Amino acid sequence: MEKRFEISLLLDFYGELLTDKQRDIMDLYYNDDLSLAEIAENNNTSRQAIHDLLKRGEKFLFEYESKLHLLERQFFVDNVKKDIVENLNLLINGDIDIQKAVDRIIDDLKEIH
Amino acid sequence: MEKRFEISLLLDFYGELLTDKQRDIMDLYYNDDLSLAEIAENNNTSRQAIHDLLKRGEKFLFEYESKLHLLERQFFVDNVKKDIVENLNLLINGDIDIQKAVDRIIDDLKEIH
Repeated sequence: MEKRFEISLLLDFYGELLTDKQRDIMDLYYNDDLSLAEIAENNNTSRQAIHDLLKRGEKFLFEYESKLHLLERQFFVDNVKKDIVENLNLLINGDIDIQKAVDRIIDDLKEIH
Repeated sequence: MEKRFEISLLLDFYGELLTDKQRDIMDLYYNDDLSLAEIAENNNTSRQAIHDLLKRGEKFLFEYESKLHLLERQFFVDNVKKDIVENLNLLINGDIDIQKAVDRIIDDLKEIH
């Protein structure tokens, strides 16, 4: 996954754990695509200060992910959901009998916590 | 929900964000049901110190939940899963046609993020 995109996703999960300022500036940089220079100017500070704040924020986000794994879980859940949808499609198309589809979907659901 | 049980669940979600000591002592108190006096004795400290540590830990756990809502989401996902299982049961029993069951389950899956 592209790092920029990954950080944008991590911000969705863990943004609330950052300070308002950290979250706002990371949001401007990673989601609104403002440059360091633009953000620095809007905040009356230096590019270096914004750069340092972003790096600190990234570090926090990756630390939270290493402990809570919410993004990792999201990908896992998405895959389980895809598997359920595939089985529903087999069912609709008559390519699997009802009992078998239901058994598979029940097994899939057990994977989602 | 009983508060003791709620804290035990919150520990599962957010325990990794506590210090090792906080997590270990909260685990002894909330999951292993040791008394303040027993934990204090095993740690060569006072009941009051253990009490304070538990209260601080609880505060952290509730703060994390107020920001990340993982326990709240767990209950929500459990309900969606129950709803899917109900529709699968209707399907197995022939009480609903396949297309309708599939539509409902797809709608349910969209609720799980």
